[in-house]
Amino acid sequence: MVEMGDAFGAVLRAALAAHTGIGPRPTVAGRLPRPVIEVIERDDGFVGTTPGERYLPTGHWWDCERRGADRVRGRVLDVGCGAGRVALALQDKGLAVTGLDTSRGAIDVATHLGVRDVVRSTVDEHARSGERYDSFVLFGNNAGLLEGRERAPRFLAALAALARPGATAYVQGTDPYHTTDEVHLAYQERNRTLGRMGGQLRLRIRYRELSTDWFDYLLCSPAELAELVAGTPWRLSDVDSGESPVFLGTLRLR
Amino acid sequence: MVEMGDAFGAVLRAALAAHTGIGPRPTVAGRLPRPVIEVIERDDGFVGTTPGERYLPTGHWWDCERRGADRVRGRVLDVGCGAGRVALALQDKGLAVTGLDTSRGAIDVATHLGVRDVVRSTVDEHARSGERYDSFVLFGNNAGLLEGRERAPRFLAALAALARPGATAYVQGTDPYHTTDEVHLAYQERNRTLGRMGGQLRLRIRYRELSTDWFDYLLCSPAELAELVAGTPWRLSDVDSGESPVFLGTLRLR
Repeated sequence: MVEMGDAFGAVLRAALAAHTGIGPRPTVAGRLPRPVIEVIERDDGFVGTTPGERYLPTGHWWDCERRGADRVRGRVLDVGCGAGRVALALQDKGLAVTGLDTSRGAIDVATHLGVRDVVRSTVDEHARSGERYDSFVLFGNNAGLLEGRERAPRFLAALAALARPGATAYVQGTDPYHTTDEVHLAYQERNRTLGRMGGQLRLRIRYRELSTDWFDYLLCSPAELAELVAGTPWRLSDVDSGESPVFLGTLRLR
Repeated sequence: MVEMGDAFGAVLRAALAAHTGIGPRPTVAGRLPRPVIEVIERDDGFVGTTPGERYLPTGHWWDCERRGADRVRGRVLDVGCGAGRVALALQDKGLAVTGLDTSRGAIDVATHLGVRDVVRSTVDEHARSGERYDSFVLFGNNAGLLEGRERAPRFLAALAALARPGATAYVQGTDPYHTTDEVHLAYQERNRTLGRMGGQLRLRIRYRELSTDWFDYLLCSPAELAELVAGTPWRLSDVDSGESPVFLGTLRLR
């Protein structure tokens, strides 16, 4: 049977091992390296895959992420820090960065790679810590953490509780509605029929024997992001959509 | 729901598209190429992955496969030809090669890549065609097609029915028993408890929305191969195990 556990963290641990050549990592018959691949299963049976190396400090940056990183200031919370790709870059700029993730493996790998301050927590729990930040970064498609109409206001309220006056949140998302892929279009239509947002993916991550629980992860348009932000302590001040459908939304505390 | 279909063929089609830059292939948000990955689900919930490019003519060859290819002669049947990695190489040596596969996608891709003679069939069906061969190649781990104790004698009988006098079969396998991976060791133990061979994997291939049916695929030791061959029209004449646990067994028609 599938074993419930930290499949995402296992991907990051293996990606690190593959990168360094130290520790358990996939091979072909013990003789050839095999890439570390995160398997992402959607609740319609679709399976997608992401190379684990994408999460490492050597992983790809969107230009809008780079432009966002140049605007980050003060004390920074990297929400969903994963292996620390973003936190390390910001730390290297001299910023005081905390990496937050719910995955034990992510926290361990980020620490190993040099992220000096990490917290294994949700934003809701962490808001009770008393720590406060000037900037929040949700790169690597972490607009997904807004999940949908139910979770988004609570998530944004927790971020506001963590915010100092004048705080800014940089939220990188992907607009799912430009696709012509019939499988994805049918999934979006099914979602709407169920009263969900079109890009409200229901996913689980699988790696070897491990699977996460099912969770929601949101792909949304900039217009949908604006709707989700309305009525929260934040306002969507601008959208960098130079790499559409990938975009970076900037939220400012009201 | 998972759609039953030719997931393996879909992997090969996408791998070809990624290689040539023509046709549907995975991307990140339509902006970056994403590798084509075959997802292999085992019936204990384990998921493994293989890059689709492995199956293309540019894919990896084991040294024992190369040594086997140098010994192939006469009319050749490539059993489980996939995208034609092996059939093309033999054809380029001037051999008369037929590529056989059950996957429509495999047959289409092999044809596109230049394999001149292809058959979409099982060995059992193809034995009724009247075609006869001097050599059989089962590279790319296609000892797996022996499946287990029930299927192996029937499979080998069908190969014998396709064989000319003096025919030879080159069977590349992987010995699964050298692993120290506890997940695989537990799976092997469970298999034995169920009366199956330790390395008798029960798998299905998934790609995007598609899944194959569950099928058995055998990893066996050279000693197990010898046991499976005993009592069939074949004898195991030698084993090239220079890259253990990967090996090439040579079967000769009695």
